[in-house]
Amino acid sequence: MQESDLIGIPEDSISTPALIVDADILEANIEKMQSYLSEKGVSLRAHAKTHKSPYIGQIQMKTGAIGLCCATLAEAEAMVQGGLNNILITSQVAEADKLQRLASIAADADISIAADCRENIAELSEAALSRGSTIGIVIEVDVGMGRCGVRSAGEAVALADETVARDGLRFRGLMGYEGHAVFIGDRTDRRRTGLAANHLLMESVNAVRARGIPVEIVSAAGTGTYDIAAGMEGITEIQAGSYIFMDLAYEKLGLPFEISLTVLSTVISRPDQKTVVLDCGMKSISVEREMPRARGYDGMEVFKLAEEHALARVDPSGKSPLRGEKVSLIPSHCCTTVNLHDRIFLVRNRHVEAVLPVSARGVH
Amino acid sequence: MQESDLIGIPEDSISTPALIVDADILEANIEKMQSYLSEKGVSLRAHAKTHKSPYIGQIQMKTGAIGLCCATLAEAEAMVQGGLNNILITSQVAEADKLQRLASIAADADISIAADCRENIAELSEAALSRGSTIGIVIEVDVGMGRCGVRSAGEAVALADETVARDGLRFRGLMGYEGHAVFIGDRTDRRRTGLAANHLLMESVNAVRARGIPVEIVSAAGTGTYDIAAGMEGITEIQAGSYIFMDLAYEKLGLPFEISLTVLSTVISRPDQKTVVLDCGMKSISVEREMPRARGYDGMEVFKLAEEHALARVDPSGKSPLRGEKVSLIPSHCCTTVNLHDRIFLVRNRHVEAVLPVSARGVH
Repeated sequence: MQESDLIGIPEDSISTPALIVDADILEANIEKMQSYLSEKGVSLRAHAKTHKSPYIGQIQMKTGAIGLCCATLAEAEAMVQGGLNNILITSQVAEADKLQRLASIAADADISIAADCRENIAELSEAALSRGSTIGIVIEVDVGMGRCGVRSAGEAVALADETVARDGLRFRGLMGYEGHAVFIGDRTDRRRTGLAANHLLMESVNAVRARGIPVEIVSAAGTGTYDIAAGMEGITEIQAGSYIFMDLAYEKLGLPFEISLTVLSTVISRPDQKTVVLDCGMKSISVEREMPRARGYDGMEVFKLAEEHALARVDPSGKSPLRGEKVSLIPSHCCTTVNLHDRIFLVRNRHVEAVLPVSARGVH
Repeated sequence: MQESDLIGIPEDSISTPALIVDADILEANIEKMQSYLSEKGVSLRAHAKTHKSPYIGQIQMKTGAIGLCCATLAEAEAMVQGGLNNILITSQVAEADKLQRLASIAADADISIAADCRENIAELSEAALSRGSTIGIVIEVDVGMGRCGVRSAGEAVALADETVARDGLRFRGLMGYEGHAVFIGDRTDRRRTGLAANHLLMESVNAVRARGIPVEIVSAAGTGTYDIAAGMEGITEIQAGSYIFMDLAYEKLGLPFEISLTVLSTVISRPDQKTVVLDCGMKSISVEREMPRARGYDGMEVFKLAEEHALARVDPSGKSPLRGEKVSLIPSHCCTTVNLHDRIFLVRNRHVEAVLPVSARGVH
């Protein structure tokens, strides 16, 4: 079927496995996050790594986001091509050709990137100068994950100095990401760890300000800690992505967002009374956190994902799906599940409203 | 860069993360498997789920494979479009639109599909009749995985009867897949489990033959058990896929194939002396088996994959890659890693010889 033939068809007629997003729930999630943060006086920089779709990025911008984050340069390129401006790339770029590509999109859009070392700042300056563009610099601070980012306020100040001293760059501010706090189940512990992380970030922010360098952006948090960071003096924007779709991991945190994303599958075999085999596996639903959950069948437990098969146990005496029936699965990790698909079926009232390309998937 | 600009460039200049296949090793693996099986008098039905690339499928056919397996209908469609004929789809299809798509490609190519229930055989017959094509039927027998497949020789006979009685279908034979044996580390145990599985398959084959129905295809095994099944009377063809690329899981089995597939990555940060951060994560290298291994750095241990980051520990006193350097990672699961990429860079003598689209990725 051509994509135009798919508009208006019932969800149940979509060929499986298929990535389904409920438009009403998606919009409600976007509005809920935006109105919460607006009330707190904090900006939302919505993370495009979750959806990789300029279409959804546009909904977030229209609802009030000040810009998007992207995890990679290629995501940023796809967003700029999709008409979006004001992007913060949250990973470092170290390859010569990528530095050029970055400088190139910075000529067309307001682009900033995370940096965590002097050499990189020098490279970024050279690239910007060679292209005649300006690249925004946000110093990344390691706030406890042990991944990228400077390890001290002193290093942050040195990099801010270096940025200010270089042509082609504009110092924008600092960012942290408390990824080690986001999934702490106990709310009090999560809050404690999240606040400690943001204190580390603010230490660097204050040191840069004490140096006389204005700090415009202080960017932090994710879906699991958005309200913790939003309540903290000095944080200017929240980097949240997963709140739009949610998943089994985020569901456990008791956040006020609903699950809008499911993977539609078909029962391809009922080889015995207690076994259901579905046509979706690790190549269409991610597996790294936990097994997906079948919606609408309480006693059904997905216990294994092979490459193209999901195996579920059912109680032979209870309700279970027959061969040929469609089953919606809720993934445990929305971001990596979206990354497995080329398109999102946006449905409203169980009918296809739009087919959205996952534009930034498979590009690097 | 356009794809044509990429031909001839050094491997180290490829923008990362990138899927690299060494052409010499790939060809040697393909030739080694083919010559082994030819000597044993067993056919190779190479599994396209591993590469999802008609280009590599063509190499396998030219080297002597009798046909390909596909895990999904969409893979088979991509292979037929890529000029390949003689395909066995190893999963069942239960959706009305997919039955029509299947009947449609069966008009252009020699297509068989695995079936494990009467209703499905009736549907396949109807679809073939409505399209005026012939669909080959291979009865799937559960040989110990507990996934799809009939659970007894009696059921296999009933389905063979049903197939023979229906128009639009051609009964081809039976298949099993001893997925529960493929990764048993101990060679003797693997052999025992593999042989037991194939005995179960042969029980069904013999029962169908005793019924007077000719069995042309007896299809079994994977890369981990190819030589076990090939040594067994009655098995006509081997379904092997991963032998062309290999990975860390298959490497442990001591098979005579070399690793041809790596993911090229770049060091984007050296935030401290013992930490290396690479620009590839769960969205470019699969995570479900174990962490990938960095080639060429003995003391370097990748201990975490985030979505777009790999974190590795290194010994500060030893050799470790600097920021900006490229590092090749060997994945633990080749099939799911290929599925994350849109293209394969085929390199020979460390220069790009071809850029192959992973045609069957993201289609369902």
